[in-house]
Amino acid sequence: MFKTVEWKNNTVLMIDQRLLPEKEVYRRYRSHKDVAGAIKDMVVRGAPAIGVAAAMGAALGALRIKAVDTKDFRKEFDKVTGLIASARPTAVNLFWAIERMRGVVKSSPGLDVAALKKRLVKEALTMHREDIEINRLIGRHGGRLLKSGSAVLTHCNAGALATAGYGTALGVIRGAIEQKKRIKVYADETRPFLQGARLTAWELKKDGIDVTLITDNMAGYMMKKGLIGSVVVGADRIAANGDVANKIGTYTVAVLAREHGIPFYVAAPLSTIDLKTPHGDLIPIEERDPSEVTHIQKRRIAPKGVGVRNPAFDVTPARLVTGIITEKGVVRAPYKKGLKALFK
Amino acid sequence: MFKTVEWKNNTVLMIDQRLLPEKEVYRRYRSHKDVAGAIKDMVVRGAPAIGVAAAMGAALGALRIKAVDTKDFRKEFDKVTGLIASARPTAVNLFWAIERMRGVVKSSPGLDVAALKKRLVKEALTMHREDIEINRLIGRHGGRLLKSGSAVLTHCNAGALATAGYGTALGVIRGAIEQKKRIKVYADETRPFLQGARLTAWELKKDGIDVTLITDNMAGYMMKKGLIGSVVVGADRIAANGDVANKIGTYTVAVLAREHGIPFYVAAPLSTIDLKTPHGDLIPIEERDPSEVTHIQKRRIAPKGVGVRNPAFDVTPARLVTGIITEKGVVRAPYKKGLKALFK
Repeated sequence: MFKTVEWKNNTVLMIDQRLLPEKEVYRRYRSHKDVAGAIKDMVVRGAPAIGVAAAMGAALGALRIKAVDTKDFRKEFDKVTGLIASARPTAVNLFWAIERMRGVVKSSPGLDVAALKKRLVKEALTMHREDIEINRLIGRHGGRLLKSGSAVLTHCNAGALATAGYGTALGVIRGAIEQKKRIKVYADETRPFLQGARLTAWELKKDGIDVTLITDNMAGYMMKKGLIGSVVVGADRIAANGDVANKIGTYTVAVLAREHGIPFYVAAPLSTIDLKTPHGDLIPIEERDPSEVTHIQKRRIAPKGVGVRNPAFDVTPARLVTGIITEKGVVRAPYKKGLKALFK
Repeated sequence: MFKTVEWKNNTVLMIDQRLLPEKEVYRRYRSHKDVAGAIKDMVVRGAPAIGVAAAMGAALGALRIKAVDTKDFRKEFDKVTGLIASARPTAVNLFWAIERMRGVVKSSPGLDVAALKKRLVKEALTMHREDIEINRLIGRHGGRLLKSGSAVLTHCNAGALATAGYGTALGVIRGAIEQKKRIKVYADETRPFLQGARLTAWELKKDGIDVTLITDNMAGYMMKKGLIGSVVVGADRIAANGDVANKIGTYTVAVLAREHGIPFYVAAPLSTIDLKTPHGDLIPIEERDPSEVTHIQKRRIAPKGVGVRNPAFDVTPARLVTGIITEKGVVRAPYKKGLKALFK
């Protein structure tokens, strides 16, 4: 099986997700700047994977800090993490991971620079390992919600490729299959970056899971035909009231699910839940380069000079969410109370 | 300005819509078989344009029939039109055009073969001219529904390229602009064939109309942001009860429009209304080649061997349609009565 992000000999290895499914290329990163660049350019994507990559990037940056004095080290480390934090604005796991790494430094006043560096590398590795464990728990809780013989629609890729491994939304599907259920998956291709066509279809096929690819605009047709039993997606940030920021198009799928009486589940670790953001309208939505829309795989598909919008995410209001599947169980409305309780 | 389909020196000229917007190539067709192939392969597409192309294809076929006896000619002409009719199943304008051409033969028992051929060519040319006139009327009626300063979302291409000229949905936008209204257009790219990105963006830009391209899954986001004032789309077939078959994804847009309280209009000539089909579930939906989904512009975007669905159309139930804009005015619910009245 492939590895999405890995720490090896004090470097970070990542599968270049821009080249999938055609090529399986692993890239080696030696500096936090390069890891930040990889996050920005979407070599790695998916909120939990971004979190782990950010932590490893911070560890890489720490290792290369030349300061001998811990005070100087802290200053330098703040710069390192600040740069990584600026890579992408929407996925809260990025900031969560950085806060956790900064916390290590803050909570270890007695350690010298060498020991701090060691602790930071260890923390990044722990976060990697924990992410997989968390996803397996999400899979176990979520798997129980799916009926054997039913089909799940998913949007974008919230799979092994979006996490340290196993996946969140695809973790739920894997969990159901481990519970001996027969599950069929419909994958939205997810323009503009095609994470569904390129990544979800690829990793499910590799796992021998029954997957059918559709274009984003076919989801309504499939639901109307009665082919979809439930929707399971990931999240980039969940506000305190249960509003969910996720890949552009998720909101449309949620509206369609409601129209057809189909349950709409969001699978995400606690690190995706941002209690500091009261509701979804306050989540910053990244607008990416127009060329992602006007070109596909570097080939132009639209006339030159046409106006373009390219929001990378949208916000699904909590009222359209049937349940949020976390490592601590499934939260249902009222979300404000339920999400807060997870952190007690 | 470009010409979508044109009769010239007893041949049919068509702009190859598969190559737009990169290349503006006109192809010349000399036989009805080649015209049927061009319809099937989507050199020409859009229900009204398919109708005109089918009529011209039938005229081409008629010219090349060698029979001297009118009875033999009729038999041969039935074969010609039967072959064209099999090119695509959903757009009713194809069958309407063929019936009209067959009607010319049936209603002219006194004419010899040479005169019949002349009449058939004339009829095809009349249908071409009428289609543009009809679209201008649709534009005039529909233009009145749009507010100056508002934005219209459209899906696929129901423009000059989908008709003999001027367009149906885009005709409504052109009509509003001729009524001195300021109109901004959002164009869904419309996967898999990308008619929005390639054709709508191209023809509106060419006309100097303000157009912004989005991927299909961004429509919900734009509506939630309050950026869309109304939706106007074309149709491939309208059932007697007002259910509308149109490009895949139209149904999703209609559900989203209803969710946001945005009017959803369908612009189509009477030739698209099929009173013989009581409701939308009876409209045959063409399923096209999986490679349209797994490849974009011949470049593979999905793993080999993945399952694919590729319905080319979907059906929007009449209850989601705010109004149907025809050359005889705007029909509103109850549609069964209103649509029937158009033909009186």
